[in-house]
Amino acid sequence: MDLTVFDQLTQANADYVAGGRHRHVPVRPARKLAVLTCMDSRIDVFAVLGLDLGEAHVIRNAGGRVTADALRSLTLSAALLGTRSVIQITHTDCGVRDPEDDITTRLSDAMGRTPDRTQWHTFVDPGRALRDDAPILENWPDRPDDFGLAGYVFDVATGALEEVVAPHAVPAP
Amino acid sequence: MDLTVFDQLTQANADYVAGGRHRHVPVRPARKLAVLTCMDSRIDVFAVLGLDLGEAHVIRNAGGRVTADALRSLTLSAALLGTRSVIQITHTDCGVRDPEDDITTRLSDAMGRTPDRTQWHTFVDPGRALRDDAPILENWPDRPDDFGLAGYVFDVATGALEEVVAPHAVPAP
Repeated sequence: MDLTVFDQLTQANADYVAGGRHRHVPVRPARKLAVLTCMDSRIDVFAVLGLDLGEAHVIRNAGGRVTADALRSLTLSAALLGTRSVIQITHTDCGVRDPEDDITTRLSDAMGRTPDRTQWHTFVDPGRALRDDAPILENWPDRPDDFGLAGYVFDVATGALEEVVAPHAVPAP
Repeated sequence: MDLTVFDQLTQANADYVAGGRHRHVPVRPARKLAVLTCMDSRIDVFAVLGLDLGEAHVIRNAGGRVTADALRSLTLSAALLGTRSVIQITHTDCGVRDPEDDITTRLSDAMGRTPDRTQWHTFVDPGRALRDDAPILENWPDRPDDFGLAGYVFDVATGALEEVVAPHAVPAP
């Protein structure tokens, strides 16, 4: 196992500190925004959305889906740190773009054994994933009394966002 | 509910595209790396670690903890997209830094009702969180046969990483 990647990362961090790019800003996101998107390596969230330090929470998982753990994060974000809008972003050419059955086969083939779980939150169409997840966010039991929601597909070829779930306010339960 | 934040984000994205900052790169992370960190608004992962587009998966949740959903993402990352190192980063002044009992009280007070779940993955000390999570990663059932692991605390005041779990190779099960 080559561990030099960690040396590279800590050196890059030393450069970040020395470059004076960091500032100490408050913990509460200034734009009262939470971003939910995929772990994909081609999404530099701060750059893509023009975010500055201290402006938004960023939640990322395989697919950018509204999982139970994403809702845990969103509840803490909203209730304790005051966020009031959620932007969900899926993307083209997603590595976990697959029906659930197929992905289990692909995983078993890759791992040489049966994986430890059965639910992978994969999808075939990134726009459909947003339309499927929007009602889950709208009915999130721990949601704020009033919050804003929108969903976009990120094109990894161009860097552009395409609106799928139009920005709308979700009223109190 | 003020929805103008979404207009600001899509305008910033148009600027990102027009600025020519995006490139189309392959889906497989070039540095075979997965980053697991907190959703905190003050961690610009690409900048802090000197990452370029296409180099690493980025998984983020409240606390930066090794939750079941983080392991779902890591399994897909490793088995399907070839990552072989995981860097976990917690941080100082975390908004969810609290014993579990206290956080439920804080959430109930903030929400005006009892939250829908009981497990929040909060912690008191960010270094202790890394030491608690390292064995979970080391014994992750779907882990690659050989992978690298390290854990750091990010100082939100200075932008610097402090090593807590030294880089090490995790051998096959």
